Amino acid sequence: MSKLSFQDYYNENFSYCYRCGKLNENGFKLKSYWEGEHTIAHFKPKPYHTGGYPGFVYGGLIAAILDCHGNGTAAAAAYKAENRGHDTLPNIRFVTASLNINFLKPTPMGKVLDLRGDILEVTNKKVIMKLSVSVEGNTTVEATMVAVRIPEKNNK
Amino acid sequence: MSKLSFQDYYNENFSYCYRCGKLNENGFKLKSYWEGEHTIAHFKPKPYHTGGYPGFVYGGLIAAILDCHGNGTAAAAAYKAENRGHDTLPNIRFVTASLNINFLKPTPMGKVLDLRGDILEVTNKKVIMKLSVSVEGNTTVEATMVAVRIPEKNNK
Repeated sequence: MSKLSFQDYYNENFSYCYRCGKLNENGFKLKSYWEGEHTIAHFKPKPYHTGGYPGFVYGGLIAAILDCHGNGTAAAAAYKAENRGHDTLPNIRFVTASLNINFLKPTPMGKVLDLRGDILEVTNKKVIMKLSVSVEGNTTVEATMVAVRIPEKNNK
Repeated sequence: MSKLSFQDYYNENFSYCYRCGKLNENGFKLKSYWEGEHTIAHFKPKPYHTGGYPGFVYGGLIAAILDCHGNGTAAAAAYKAENRGHDTLPNIRFVTASLNINFLKPTPMGKVLDLRGDILEVTNKKVIMKLSVSVEGNTTVEATMVAVRIPEKNNK
């Protein structure tokens, strides 16, 4: 995909996140996008991202990429609610208040994980969303996340 | 600490977990122990384990190490409930069913994170526990986790 992701627009100070910061050389650089009214991201785990159970993706890794996709989704939802682009100022950034994850079934290794975000509520202080992970159309993980908006003075 | 951790007793097939498997060369090898009636683990994030917000630990990393500590805690609680050691057969292993995390405040970088597990309920199918992360005695994250026991036939 050649278009810019939500994370590509993060201001420099916020671009070192371990799993989605474009400037973190040890990270994944997860990238999230709109797809109609919901958001998406894709990630293929490395062979060493296994969990305890052989052949299945580590739940902690899934939690991590959901956290990144959720914060990106929250920012995108807030920009959209204010009817302005990610490249306009002031920056909008979020942090996670809560992340409730249900592991419905094992997520198999060796496949691309499809992350999805559906926005449930947007206020000027927080965004509540539903998140999920699917593999080849089969949903393996569902989550609910509350992200809170960082006050503008802390957001440069 | 010279004594063996919960994870040191995992059978080989279950020892490749990204964050706590003793045989995963790309992982953290998180180690969990009893401390009286609760469980503990310690972990110091690397400088690149930052979140989006500068100076604070990445929430996804916290979710990941809680997941590992929780599964180790569940196994320990089950061995204890059966009044037998981690080195006895059959193996007892768990997977995460749900992990509900509340990020109470930012977790600062550059410090050792103290993880704690308090067991709320043990049945022959699941363990429910409260988990937390503290830094220098200051609790920054609380979580509730449900871990389900892997059937013995899948647990070799």
